[in-house]
Amino acid sequence: MLSFPPAMQKLIRELSKLPSIGEKSATRLAYHLVNNDRALAESLADTLRAAIKGVQTCTTCFNLSEGESCVICRNPQRDPKTICVIEKPMDLVAIERMGEYRGLYHVLHGLWAPLRGQGPESMKLNELVERIKGGAVKEVILATSSTVEGDATALYVARLVAQHGIPTSRLAQGMPKGGELEYADDITLSRALSGRHVISG
Amino acid sequence: MLSFPPAMQKLIRELSKLPSIGEKSATRLAYHLVNNDRALAESLADTLRAAIKGVQTCTTCFNLSEGESCVICRNPQRDPKTICVIEKPMDLVAIERMGEYRGLYHVLHGLWAPLRGQGPESMKLNELVERIKGGAVKEVILATSSTVEGDATALYVARLVAQHGIPTSRLAQGMPKGGELEYADDITLSRALSGRHVISG
Repeated sequence: MLSFPPAMQKLIRELSKLPSIGEKSATRLAYHLVNNDRALAESLADTLRAAIKGVQTCTTCFNLSEGESCVICRNPQRDPKTICVIEKPMDLVAIERMGEYRGLYHVLHGLWAPLRGQGPESMKLNELVERIKGGAVKEVILATSSTVEGDATALYVARLVAQHGIPTSRLAQGMPKGGELEYADDITLSRALSGRHVISG
Repeated sequence: MLSFPPAMQKLIRELSKLPSIGEKSATRLAYHLVNNDRALAESLADTLRAAIKGVQTCTTCFNLSEGESCVICRNPQRDPKTICVIEKPMDLVAIERMGEYRGLYHVLHGLWAPLRGQGPESMKLNELVERIKGGAVKEVILATSSTVEGDATALYVARLVAQHGIPTSRLAQGMPKGGELEYADDITLSRALSGRHVISG
């Protein structure tokens, strides 16, 4: 790497700060950008600048947005009676990809993770309570991940929301599609068992 | 992805044009840059611009360089009597990392690959001949990869250089360090056998 010019070395160093990009991948990426595709390097620099300047969070639901309100909050076809609570904007992408949910979202931008020193104040909770007080919301769906922290957060938010008389629900937990019983872990299996439902035959 | 603002979508599209970055990695990278580390996004944009503007190829050996001459050609401690011929600047990094070679380089920026429509004219060959004609060069080491195209190129360059009365050599081919005989492929094994050397005992 030292046989490369300083500007190239700096580019490699910056690229290797990205998550899951090591020095070797960074070197390959930098080389591709500088040696093979300068047009891409240029448009990437522009797009990065545009994204930093243009992208903020929605003042209502805290999804990523290019103005005050995100595309979902601005869409009059979405049902404002249901709010789906998620940890981060990437989770919203997963639910939207499924294409069956028509309500709104609330992005917490964090989880209740005492072991990592993150208390309830690290989440957008006051803002959720304000939205609920508005009176339009009839159900809050807790769609945090099925992890210890996701479950703890869901429980915490459920109690908070209950104080305002709004019913909450949690995503079902059980066997994933294609999951083989033989390889299922104990907790998944136990949750699938306790969540079993009657088959009307 | 459609639930992200356009500037974010464009950033994801640009990032996924990079080699070995798929849409999923690109989404994760874009999200990290925009949501978690805007300082990195900013310095990355600057560094990209600086690299495009500042990095060119050395007018002598065609290594990446920030001026007319690269760090290696500028170094008076390097031995100008030996030229190591390689395919691309990344190969130079590998040889420099080893730290034993003290001569100069010549980067072909291509290989003789008729199947991909790349003839000898796609390589910096005339420039190599000009350097040899200068008279200072006493040996040309052919360090293209041990692939069909690398071998063909080495042979082609060797003949070209021989016309000017300069001796050429090729990197040794044989068993890699740690390579187990049981798993060695036929060609490697055959080359290791024909290249065997006497052990002075």
